[in-house]
Amino acid sequence: MRILGIDPGTGILGFGVIDKVSSSKNVLVDAGVIRTRPHMPLDERLVEIFKCLKEIIESSNPTVMVIEKLFFAQNVTTAISVSHARGVAMLAGKLADLEIVEYTPLQIKQSLTGYGRADKKQVQEMVRLTLGLKEIPKPDDCADALAAAIVHAGSLRV
Amino acid sequence: MRILGIDPGTGILGFGVIDKVSSSKNVLVDAGVIRTRPHMPLDERLVEIFKCLKEIIESSNPTVMVIEKLFFAQNVTTAISVSHARGVAMLAGKLADLEIVEYTPLQIKQSLTGYGRADKKQVQEMVRLTLGLKEIPKPDDCADALAAAIVHAGSLRV
Repeated sequence: MRILGIDPGTGILGFGVIDKVSSSKNVLVDAGVIRTRPHMPLDERLVEIFKCLKEIIESSNPTVMVIEKLFFAQNVTTAISVSHARGVAMLAGKLADLEIVEYTPLQIKQSLTGYGRADKKQVQEMVRLTLGLKEIPKPDDCADALAAAIVHAGSLRV
Repeated sequence: MRILGIDPGTGILGFGVIDKVSSSKNVLVDAGVIRTRPHMPLDERLVEIFKCLKEIIESSNPTVMVIEKLFFAQNVTTAISVSHARGVAMLAGKLADLEIVEYTPLQIKQSLTGYGRADKKQVQEMVRLTLGLKEIPKPDDCADALAAAIVHAGSLRV
């Protein structure tokens, strides 16, 4: 089962692809970020994100997209910006016939660390351990995308 | 000059197409709404909006998309929901090589009525008058989309 995790954003969007190979083993396939140029108009950013994501989906061929649900109490301006990218990302996934799954930040933290108030660093360390990596994937957006994918992998029977 | 106005939303998205035929005359070409079913998952709604908008753009062939900027002080949950649809709408426009133009609600009110605190009804009445219609276009989302298009028409030299 191949899973694509997404941490949405208009300036930087993290993605991470993993394979669930057994009930206790996930393998990193690909991970990175889509960056759009600062001061690029929003419409151009969205096209860039859409096209890059389409390519990532075509080349990695996942069956499901896992995307973080927005945390409603956060800054409104940020929420608006992220939601534009999030809409486009979900569209790209659904147009490619991927199943779209959403988790809240709380669900992700709780599932990975057993503790809903875990900090970013603890979540990232669990990403590193789960995938057997030497280093925590950088930047944060990339690690967060992988975190979402790992949580979904944990919810599936192989 | 053919202009497509958009009032974005995930449950209902208003659109209005007008032609600016002279410096003082705009003609209604098409207007309506895209409705998605209540309880439809967000990803399916976004696909529906994207596909319908693509068809509207292909059939009406506008050169510019005018879309209302989100009002940042509004309800966060609504802002998040509208932004998903807004991102997808801008993407559909930009992928079809339309110029994308944004106006704030204040700019639209001020431009149409000369008064930034005009109420919805006054704006809609100006839409009716400008396009020489018997009735105010219904529902509100449709009238709002036409309002955005008319404001942009007013900013253009023929």
